[in-house]
Amino acid sequence: MFPNKRVQGMVGKRVHVEMKGERNVLEGVLTSVDDYLNLYLSGANEVENGERKRLLGSVVVRGNNVVLINPLKE
Amino acid sequence: MFPNKRVQGMVGKRVHVEMKGERNVLEGVLTSVDDYLNLYLSGANEVENGERKRLLGSVVVRGNNVVLINPLKE
Amino acid sequence: MFPNKRVQGMVGKRVHVEMKGERNVLEGVLTSVDDYLNLYLSGANEVENGERKRLLGSVVVRGNNVVLINPLKE
Amino acid sequence: MFPNKRVQGMVGKRVHVEMKGERNVLEGVLTSVDDYLNLYLSGANEVENGERKRLLGSVVVRGNNVVLINPLKE
Amino acid sequence: MFPNKRVQGMVGKRVHVEMKGERNVLEGVLTSVDDYLNLYLSGANEVENGERKRLLGSVVVRGNNVVLINPLKE
Amino acid sequence: MFPNKRVQGMVGKRVHVEMKGERNVLEGVLTSVDDYLNLYLSGANEVENGERKRLLGSVVVRGNNVVLINPLKE
Repeated sequence: MFPNKRVQGMVGKRVHVEMKGERNVLEGVLTSVDDYLNLYLSGANEVENGERKRLLGSVVVRGNNVVLINPLKE
Repeated sequence: MFPNKRVQGMVGKRVHVEMKGERNVLEGVLTSVDDYLNLYLSGANEVENGERKRLLGSVVVRGNNVVLINPLKE
Repeated sequence: MFPNKRVQGMVGKRVHVEMKGERNVLEGVLTSVDDYLNLYLSGANEVENGERKRLLGSVVVRGNNVVLINPLKE
Repeated sequence: MFPNKRVQGMVGKRVHVEMKGERNVLEGVLTSVDDYLNLYLSGANEVENGERKRLLGSVVVRGNNVVLINPLKE
Repeated sequence: MFPNKRVQGMVGKRVHVEMKGERNVLEGVLTSVDDYLNLYLSGANEVENGERKRLLGSVVVRGNNVVLINPLKE
Repeated sequence: MFPNKRVQGMVGKRVHVEMKGERNVLEGVLTSVDDYLNLYLSGANEVENGERKRLLGSVVVRGNNVVLINPLKE
């Protein structure tokens, strides 16, 4: 199963996303994703050292700036 | 609804945009957007620590350098 | 009007361009632009803290390294 | 044999992946890969100075942020 | 004239190239260029503070990592 | 001769590759290359200040993270 299908399989689940740029770790519910790995997260928080640092709410993340994504254990 | 459609749904609203590069947070009214997430913002300000730092006015932001975008509460 | 059309509307005018990389702010006359936001600037200067730091003359800037572009007031 | 075919030949094996961004070295079993070098790793760990630093588990890595990949000796 | 045509017009001339990455300024004769602004330079030198720091000779530079290019006065 | 053809002409030869990211200089035999400048190097070493720092062996490098490549004198 290709990597982008793996990400599609995470829709509806809470995910951990590491990105390029200053604010680099987000957690939230993956609500939609396209083939470029552009992500739409709801209930997203910025996370630092495993703690919630800032509530972002609904946010669109551009795929080319995503370094990695994995599902959060629930 | 795909992530780029979510951004199109923000047209006409004030948005918060985090980018790569030295000046990394902008707020302004999203006036147009294309499929690459290139953005045209009007009344844009550079923001630092939640405060307006510099008035940019009308500005085009290149999509690949957008890390995330979300709507501002009004 | 899409963001790239907005940039085309700046042709012939002085623009402010912020880029990724070490030397990150340029000002000059936008002489041409393509769909990738590759820019050709004439009479370009590198700018630091609002002051001209270095004359570059005619310069081609690659679009993917453009963070933002806006017209300069005249 | 083209570079992407070389990576396909690593499927099922443990690989070492160096990426752009804050957390830059991963090791895990390469479970799938596509033509963009998007990777799906299982049993992945973040590695620092050759030691396991953090268990990530199953993770999707976006290809454009992969700097290099090589097979681990077993 | 589009920006990439401007660069094609520099073939055979000495150019100044600023790039992303650790070693960020090169000067050399532009021998060929393609539509992605991949460059082939001959007699290239790495330059720091306007002085030649290291002879590279013939070098291929990948276009997406080119920030700007301009012709050197002769 | 276009830049990517120049790189194809280096196949079978030892090359010097500078990349984005933490570990930024590699040397090895260029075994294959594609149109994106994805590289497959064999006998690759990470190099720092002109000295071999770490043996990588066979490694795939993603083209968009290659800053420059040139042949090593033999």
